[in-house]
Parts: sequence; structure tokens; C-alpha cells
Amino acid sequence: MKDHVLGIDFGGSKVALAVARSDSIDQPVGSVRLPTLASQGARQVVQRCFAAAGELLKGVGRLRAVGVSTFGVVRGDRVRLAPAVPGWEGLELPRLLHHEFGRTPVAIDNDVKAAASAELRWGALRGVDTGLYLNLGTGLAAAMVVGGRVVSGAHGANGEIGYLLRSPGEPGFAAGHAPLEEFISGRALGDRGTALLGRPITASELFARGGDERVEGLLNEAIDGLAMAVANLCVMIDPERVVVGGGMMGAARRIVPTLTAAVTAAVPFPPEIIAARFVDDAPLFGALALAANVSERR
Amino acid sequence: MKDHVLGIDFGGSKVALAVARSDSIDQPVGSVRLPTLASQGARQVVQRCFAAAGELLKGVGRLRAVGVSTFGVVRGDRVRLAPAVPGWEGLELPRLLHHEFGRTPVAIDNDVKAAASAELRWGALRGVDTGLYLNLGTGLAAAMVVGGRVVSGAHGANGEIGYLLRSPGEPGFAAGHAPLEEFISGRALGDRGTALLGRPITASELFARGGDERVEGLLNEAIDGLAMAVANLCVMIDPERVVVGGGMMGAARRIVPTLTAAVTAAVPFPPEIIAARFVDDAPLFGALALAANVSERR
Repeated sequence: MKDHVLGIDFGGSKVALAVARSDSIDQPVGSVRLPTLASQGARQVVQRCFAAAGELLKGVGRLRAVGVSTFGVVRGDRVRLAPAVPGWEGLELPRLLHHEFGRTPVAIDNDVKAAASAELRWGALRGVDTGLYLNLGTGLAAAMVVGGRVVSGAHGANGEIGYLLRSPGEPGFAAGHAPLEEFISGRALGDRGTALLGRPITASELFARGGDERVEGLLNEAIDGLAMAVANLCVMIDPERVVVGGGMMGAARRIVPTLTAAVTAAVPFPPEIIAARFVDDAPLFGALALAANVSERR
Repeated sequence: MKDHVLGIDFGGSKVALAVARSDSIDQPVGSVRLPTLASQGARQVVQRCFAAAGELLKGVGRLRAVGVSTFGVVRGDRVRLAPAVPGWEGLELPRLLHHEFGRTPVAIDNDVKAAASAELRWGALRGVDTGLYLNLGTGLAAAMVVGGRVVSGAHGANGEIGYLLRSPGEPGFAAGHAPLEEFISGRALGDRGTALLGRPITASELFARGGDERVEGLLNEAIDGLAMAVANLCVMIDPERVVVGGGMMGAARRIVPTLTAAVTAAVPFPPEIIAARFVDDAPLFGALALAANVSERR
């Protein structure tokens, strides 16, 4: 029987698992999804995930590696910057994984960095030496690629651009804020649109709606703010390519041209801006890419 | 006789050369400076530099490597982003160097990246994996360190933060502007102070002056703008340390605390901010560090 690898993506609303043969990791042979049930805490998520993994791996050949992507950042033996699920902040996820999977190599990384690993291995960042992956989802984050590898940062927090400031001295991370993410992200647009219209509305509904001047104003201002941030990241990094993924790319026709115009105006050597290959399942394919990376190193 | 290396720093106002023994490259045994005489163009600078190098190398042992730092960025076989000296933009500096020095290995890089290489090898970035070097001089630029090496970028333009935008849609590189550098750099502060006071004044005179409310206002606004930019770079990069050099560090007691406060407020894992080891001669020591790097690779 062939060797297999397992990918696990811990997300704020769902946990996704996939199993694939080692020789065709980007084509999973089985997968399953569970609700995270965030309000019930971190331990039950991990337990249910391991039970589901056990089912998924029944009758499968030797497990060669496990790749895990999670929200938050992984620093040493714990998860940090993960306030969304009670108990996740500070969770010793690496230890729990090693306990469950024994001697099988386990690689773990932040969901957006994992997604960038999938784009590097199988997608729109293939062959790129210096690049940028941008995730426009419920939240906002990025991953930087240097030397063909995803950069971790000194504390695993490279690319946490939700914390970028929009004006000098405004309340930032230490005051419990993520200024750019609170201005432009799926969640922020939903919140801001809801406040504007006086009734619940999501980011994708805002984009679908057209013609309403107030909504157009909100979206234009948000996308212009995002475009400036992306242009500035490109000024600093000098990437050859920016790859954009995440749920907000449903509005790619509106977002990508604005980003392209901004980098063309501001960046000495403007990078191309293109859509990611993996959209909905990016962090799960990311987890599989991490498994592929770690199995190659053994 | 011992092997030697040569360092050359092409600056906008002066060219500096130093020769050192291969086993103690950070302690030059001879050096010389020439005026750039920018208005007379690029070729004469290079010619006079090579003549001075010939003098400096008389009676010295085998020349093992040459390191060269220059303003602008080096892309492939030419210098780019170098409007300060007529003829420098597009100059085939690598070819001229190889012609002059024959089979001796030559390494060439941008002055700020070279200075970061010197800090990595002998100075305040030693042992740092992920870091940031910030040059507050006549101009404004940075260099990013990942995996203990200075990052080049896809076109050699990593760290050209003078082009960072301060507000969405403002005129940037394509319109002939370097928004952040025009706001906060030695040159910008001199220009803005001169306009404010109606008489010629330099950045260091502005810092030395105190008590004048208008000058304080100008400096505070500029330093706050710089601090926000540095905080945002740290949010993106997640460096363990930021090292600051350049002539404006004469006002370090005013600048460093503001930068430290900004990263403490905005960055999830705030890096320490410390002064560079090399201040006045940073790019020349950078050139020597490049020579050291290339001689080790042979």
C-alpha cells in the first residue's frame, strides 16, 4: 500500500481534514469537515479532530507525515494571537499533535503561511523567489516569500498585516486593535456595512449590491486603503509577484485592478498581481503542502 | 605578504576607498576619500576612483576581492534609481569594475544593503536571523535581513522605503516622487526647515535648535511619521531587532525613544531598536563586508 499524508486545517468556524497519497498530495483521496464549535473551547475541537482523523486514516497505508494549519501564529510550543476560539491562545498544539501521532513527523504553521506554501508548491507562487501572498478573508493577513520559502519572522508573526497602522499614533496591537483589519477585511466590511445600512449585511452582499452611493463610498475607501497598504508592502519587499486569495476574491474584478493601479503608481518595479490557485480550501491545501515539505526533509 | 581586500563606496558627495588585510577586514590599513564632483558625470568619478585604488594598492599583497557599495540599486549589469549623479542611472558599473580588476572577484550592492552586511558581520545585527536595518541619512532607506542574510528583492530594490506612501492615492514613484523620503530624511528636514524659517538650515541644525515651537512641530510631525512607517515595517517583517544608522542618528536621543514607543504600541512582538555600530563610514565598511563575503565564497 502507498504511503499517505494527512492535512488538518483548524479554522475559526470549521476544521477540515484531508488524506492524500504521498505521490499526489495535491489530489486528496478523502476529506472531512467538522464545525469548530468555538464557544465550547479548544480541547473538544482537538479531540473531535483526532477522532475524525482516525476514521479518515482507516484502511490507509503508512502515515508518512502530518501537516497542520491553524489560525493565530505558532510560536515555539504554543499558539499565539488567536483570540477567536476560547482556549486556543496559548494552546500547546504541537505537544497534543506529537502525542496523537507519535513518531510521524508533524509540521505546523499559521493558516495564511500554510496557504502560501501551497501556492509555492502547486499554485500561483511556483518558481517565485521573492513574493507576497495576500489573504483577503474574514480576517486580513499576508505571507512573505524570500528565497523561494515562506518567511516565519522572529516570532512566527511575519505577515500579520491586520495590525498595520493607518495613521500615526492611532491605537494598535497593544490597545487591543488591529487597525487595518478593522478597516478592510470580510468581517470589517460586514460590520461597517451593517452599521451604515442599519440592518445585517455581509461583505459579499455589499460587493453584490451596486448603485447605492453610500455603499460605493465605503467600499471605495476600504479598497483604496488596502491598495495603499499593498503598495507599501511592495515598496519594502520588492516582490516579483503578489498572489491574492481568500473569500473576498469573489470581488476580484473590483479589487485586483485597484491594487494593480496602486502598485503601478507607487512601486519602482511594480509586481504583477494575480489570483491565487487555491481559494476556498487554501489553508487545507496549505496543511497538505506542509506535510509534503516535512516528508521530503525526512 | 598577506592577502588584502579593497572596499569602495560611491556616495553622492564623496567616494571612499579602504584596503584591509583578509584576516582583519574590519580594521583597514589604508584609506582615501575623493569628492564625487557629481556635476561632472559618472565616468570621471569611476576613473579617479580607479586611479586612487591603484595608489592605495601599491606595495600591498595579492588582492583577493573587491567590494563596492553605491547609491541607487544594482540590477543585473546596471545601476538604477540613482538620479543624484549625472550618468549614474543606467551606468554599467559591474562591467567597468570587472574590466579594471580582471579576475579578482568583485561584489557590488546598494550602499544601505552593504551597510547592513557590515552590521551583520561585525556590528549590531550579528547573530540576527530576521532583522531590519534603517538608514536615516541624507536619504531614507532600509535593508531587510532574513535567514541571517540581506534580502535583495526581485529587482534589487528591497528596502527602498523612501517611496512609501503616506496617504492613499498621493503621487508616488511613477510621478517622480519619494513620498516618505520627501517628508522625513536629512535632505527633507533641511528643505522643510529652510522653507519654514526663510533662511538656509540643515537637519542637524534643526535638531540642535530647541525651544522654537514651529521647529518642534515640524520635527515631531516628521519623527511621528517615521515612527509609524517603522512600526508598520515591523508588523510586516516581525524582526527581532531594528538597527538604526545614518547621519540623523546624531539626534538618536530624540529619535530612538519615539521609534521604540511606536513599535511597542503597534507590533505584536516588539523588536528592540538600537543604534548601528558603524555610523559615518557605514557604506565603506559595507563594501569591505561585501569583499569579505565574496572572498569566503571562493
